[in-house]
Amino acid sequence: MFPENLMMKLSEKTPSKICLVVLDGLGGIPYNGKTELETSRHPNLDEFAANSACGTSVPVALGITPGSGPGHLALFGYNPMTYLIGRGILEALGIGLELTEFDLACRANFATEQKGIIIDRRAGRISSEENERLVKILSAAITDIDGVKVKTYTGKEHRFVVVFTGENMTDGLEDADPQKEGLPAKECIASGDSSARSARIVNAFIKKAGEALKDEKVANAVLLRGFACTPEIPKMPDLYHLSCGAFAVYPMYKGLASLVGMELVDCGQTLQSQIKALAENYGRFDFAFFHYKYTDSNGEDKNFEGKVAAIKNFDKILPEILKLNFDVVCITADHSTPAKMGSHSWHPCPVAIKSKFEPVDEVVKFTERNFSKGVLGRIWATDIMPLLLANAGKLKKFGA
Amino acid sequence: MFPENLMMKLSEKTPSKICLVVLDGLGGIPYNGKTELETSRHPNLDEFAANSACGTSVPVALGITPGSGPGHLALFGYNPMTYLIGRGILEALGIGLELTEFDLACRANFATEQKGIIIDRRAGRISSEENERLVKILSAAITDIDGVKVKTYTGKEHRFVVVFTGENMTDGLEDADPQKEGLPAKECIASGDSSARSARIVNAFIKKAGEALKDEKVANAVLLRGFACTPEIPKMPDLYHLSCGAFAVYPMYKGLASLVGMELVDCGQTLQSQIKALAENYGRFDFAFFHYKYTDSNGEDKNFEGKVAAIKNFDKILPEILKLNFDVVCITADHSTPAKMGSHSWHPCPVAIKSKFEPVDEVVKFTERNFSKGVLGRIWATDIMPLLLANAGKLKKFGA
Repeated sequence: MFPENLMMKLSEKTPSKICLVVLDGLGGIPYNGKTELETSRHPNLDEFAANSACGTSVPVALGITPGSGPGHLALFGYNPMTYLIGRGILEALGIGLELTEFDLACRANFATEQKGIIIDRRAGRISSEENERLVKILSAAITDIDGVKVKTYTGKEHRFVVVFTGENMTDGLEDADPQKEGLPAKECIASGDSSARSARIVNAFIKKAGEALKDEKVANAVLLRGFACTPEIPKMPDLYHLSCGAFAVYPMYKGLASLVGMELVDCGQTLQSQIKALAENYGRFDFAFFHYKYTDSNGEDKNFEGKVAAIKNFDKILPEILKLNFDVVCITADHSTPAKMGSHSWHPCPVAIKSKFEPVDEVVKFTERNFSKGVLGRIWATDIMPLLLANAGKLKKFGA
Repeated sequence: MFPENLMMKLSEKTPSKICLVVLDGLGGIPYNGKTELETSRHPNLDEFAANSACGTSVPVALGITPGSGPGHLALFGYNPMTYLIGRGILEALGIGLELTEFDLACRANFATEQKGIIIDRRAGRISSEENERLVKILSAAITDIDGVKVKTYTGKEHRFVVVFTGENMTDGLEDADPQKEGLPAKECIASGDSSARSARIVNAFIKKAGEALKDEKVANAVLLRGFACTPEIPKMPDLYHLSCGAFAVYPMYKGLASLVGMELVDCGQTLQSQIKALAENYGRFDFAFFHYKYTDSNGEDKNFEGKVAAIKNFDKILPEILKLNFDVVCITADHSTPAKMGSHSWHPCPVAIKSKFEPVDEVVKFTERNFSKGVLGRIWATDIMPLLLANAGKLKKFGA
């Protein structure tokens, strides 16, 4: 990877515009001989490939299956092995919270305790409505511990999120969760001196929560895990001298974009409203991140046909993105989500870059196997941002 | 490379089984227009390629010719530039010794000394029988120096191996060998304070050996070089949470496998007995390393036809490996040994991975040039283990 400090020196502001389109989990593996991309009809993606430099991109390292965090950070040009996003932060981003450097976030469960023993880690999977009622109780009972603000947020069923906001909040905390039923509740333990105060505050929260819930029959305890602070990460506008806009519908991707300094643009909830937002805000940004979720979600659901349909649906609106006339357009994925596996995978992702400065190759079909023969070859996901900036004329020469 | 500490966190034990077949020195370069693989008929390897993801693998770095140590360490997923195996250790492994962290090993020559001057560094290349007689004299005369156990082992002609075993033995010792005839014998010099004691013990050995051999007419001195301790290297069972079995016939490869924590399975001396051992022990290991030597040894001997025949011989028994039904099978090489060169070379090696999760490409011939068009592209040898683990479902997702 090209080092960040040099990237900061080489990049410069110019009027050119870049659009990075992420079709989440796009890559697949063959199912009855063909991948989702090989099965789907997608004439606009094929035409895009035919006019682009094509290749494949490795999200993190060969054989390594990335989560959404590392997958996106790599696309934004960050070394995903350097900048680790903890589970609590991702969970908080996933429910739409905007976080700052003063936040310590964690995942939480409502649980059932009897005589000091956790007898149900999920409190019988209470309904989300019941969860909302309980979170109101907690929110009313606990607002502040030792000068640190505490906020609780409803999730699905038994799950919720706690965010502790204050000076010097640190992670490096062990899960306050016995992980198994039949064991006593577990205190949060600091892994070192620097997190001792955070551990005390977390433990005070657990105690207060138990008191606030003591009259509940089912959900009378809380288990907290995945403690994480926001990573210290340089912002894209500083790193690349770019104004960046994020056009995403799902909270987690908005959250990731916001972590790296993008402005979140309200996109509504449909692909049409998302395109409309992109068109209306075209003039405002040097760099637009456009995120499409349904290729991934269908892959995760092992819904091969659903993923094929999601590809077709995106294909239909692609001309609306292209007619905006970005100087550089890249279509790629953060990772593969083969429907055959029903999960993220390690397989390299298709990547196509359209720019007047990239040579067009012989690839005319937008598929994994065709792209493996493209002129870009196999690159690392972290190579994509430098290539886009270079094609947009935003990178000065390195050295004399 | 994906860092070891993360690999340790991501890997997990599952019931799936992996077989890594190393056809030593398999790759070649054209001789009269065709490589050994392009000349040989090998229908089973071709069928394997047709059902695999194919590519080429760079053992260490482009242009770098690896020894057997780095070649194999890279295949086992270790950075061959981090873990260096000293010459003495490799020599000791090569004659079948099993070494521990307390061993300091070196290569040794019987030599002829006259009035303090080395007049023949190889003692007239004495016979191996003569060597055995002399090693018996040394073994009887020197068993222990200053609490350190000393053992000498016969090699071929004038060569033998010395192993010093004790607490705190260190390498970092200069060769005790003038390298040229007509110069005085040379003491072993410590490169730093930490190896001063080891140097003293080595020099005491040289002196005692000279005394024990003083009545010999030809071999009346010893020269020691390539001092090395075993490298501190994490074991594969710890790194990958795998039980590993090595199916190799040649001592050096058994030794390398044992260094990284594999269990050595007695394979007899023939390819048939090796296959039989693999079949009989199939249930015992998550990971089987199967080593075939003759592609390399014929290459080293500049025996093009011999290497072609070695490929054919392996091809015949390949179905017996495949019928065992490993979940993931990889066939590759530790380096190329082109018969045209008669030595190891830097050329990338063919690599084919067969697994239900790897996309099959259009490659149907098991040759270097066909493989360069495969879907795996060109990978590093150190990428192979992560890919095999991923395909076997043994790697958790990285990051949330």
